[in-house]
Amino acid sequence: MHKIVLLRHGESTWNQENRFTGWTDVDLTERGVAEAHEAGRLLREGQYTFDVAYTSVLKRALKTLWITLEELDQLWIPVHPSWRLNERHYGALQGLNKAETAAKYGEQQVLEWRRSYSIRPPALEPSDPRYPGHDPRYAHLDRHTLPLTECLADTVARFLPYWQDTIAPAVREGKRVLIVAHGNSLRALIKYLDGISDEEIVGLNIPTGIPLVYELNAHLEPLRHYYLGDPEEVAKQMQAVANQGKAR
Amino acid sequence: MHKIVLLRHGESTWNQENRFTGWTDVDLTERGVAEAHEAGRLLREGQYTFDVAYTSVLKRALKTLWITLEELDQLWIPVHPSWRLNERHYGALQGLNKAETAAKYGEQQVLEWRRSYSIRPPALEPSDPRYPGHDPRYAHLDRHTLPLTECLADTVARFLPYWQDTIAPAVREGKRVLIVAHGNSLRALIKYLDGISDEEIVGLNIPTGIPLVYELNAHLEPLRHYYLGDPEEVAKQMQAVANQGKAR
Repeated sequence: MHKIVLLRHGESTWNQENRFTGWTDVDLTERGVAEAHEAGRLLREGQYTFDVAYTSVLKRALKTLWITLEELDQLWIPVHPSWRLNERHYGALQGLNKAETAAKYGEQQVLEWRRSYSIRPPALEPSDPRYPGHDPRYAHLDRHTLPLTECLADTVARFLPYWQDTIAPAVREGKRVLIVAHGNSLRALIKYLDGISDEEIVGLNIPTGIPLVYELNAHLEPLRHYYLGDPEEVAKQMQAVANQGKAR
Repeated sequence: MHKIVLLRHGESTWNQENRFTGWTDVDLTERGVAEAHEAGRLLREGQYTFDVAYTSVLKRALKTLWITLEELDQLWIPVHPSWRLNERHYGALQGLNKAETAAKYGEQQVLEWRRSYSIRPPALEPSDPRYPGHDPRYAHLDRHTLPLTECLADTVARFLPYWQDTIAPAVREGKRVLIVAHGNSLRALIKYLDGISDEEIVGLNIPTGIPLVYELNAHLEPLRHYYLGDPEEVAKQMQAVANQGKAR
């Protein structure tokens, strides 16, 4: 039996401002930092230890990971950042306020952009300063690889090769794996592991800063999964994430 | 021309208590944290960017590195921790106060242990709780590899393969390399690069938290080196390190 732990980064400044973030490299808020410490404490209480960690190249995930590892006194484990674990790219919506966007385009349109499996938000122009091709951390990737916008299906497509080629082999070797990532890259993983349909994945909300444990069999099929910590707090946080797209 | 940056971690709790630290995994003091931020600011002012970082598996180096990268807004670069960049192992002296040890064994003996190239401090017993074989971060290393004590020659011998096989090839490929390590592992590197004799290396003091830039030619031979920041501050800190072995 294998056990992996998934963790969504703590609150970021744009979570707080209710803006579409995507690949924008915003920092954690004070609350986000506190959530990361709490995640580390929950893992420490559960006596979790890890052999390797995977995360995105975005600082809200990296900092959540460092704080968690510091709480676990495991700063020394190998950490692999990859753009394939980044949040879904939100295209031209990046930087816009979610409620304002809902008021302008209608809640239904925003819900579709946020939660449809295959409808992409409006794309960025490559000349847009927000285009990832201008950022040195993506300099090794070509224009055909870098997104101008993504629907969740796109995020799944670019995340899965990393699971298949890098993370899953480590799990199979018996490594204890921690993955610190984003709402949509974690959703991509959960969709794949649990075989969730394109329709149902839309309704799955992952709370920030609460470790989610997946127990897997030898074929890496899930046996069960559970959040660490207080179940009421988990339910409250899931609802808070679901409410973010509403105009009011 | 290649440029690499060496950085000795900021003040640790045992620097402050004037105790032999070695492989003991002590934390940074508040001052050590501030030094790391200052190192990051100096590098940012100098417009340094890095492609890859190497560090030890000890948290005082890891945290110095993360704080530095955060100041540089470069948390996303690959970071490689290795035991080969650890501080010199101080054997049975680990945990003892330097001044008390000097009072007990004499300043000359302590100076020899601290600064002789080839005289080892008293060795640990493998049953000693301080023996690294009890620590999960060294679980992949066998008893013949893990030290019971080290003189600087031993530190050089276990550090050099990592330079030769891992760091130097990255530099040759054109990668901009940051190395955050310890007084003696950095001394090992500088001894090798500058061809410093076994006798002279004893007198070389590296201040904490001040970036040291080495410019290297295509054969990785040093062209020149210099500290970033205020030269008076650098001189003061070097003297402070030199004074640590004195009884009073």
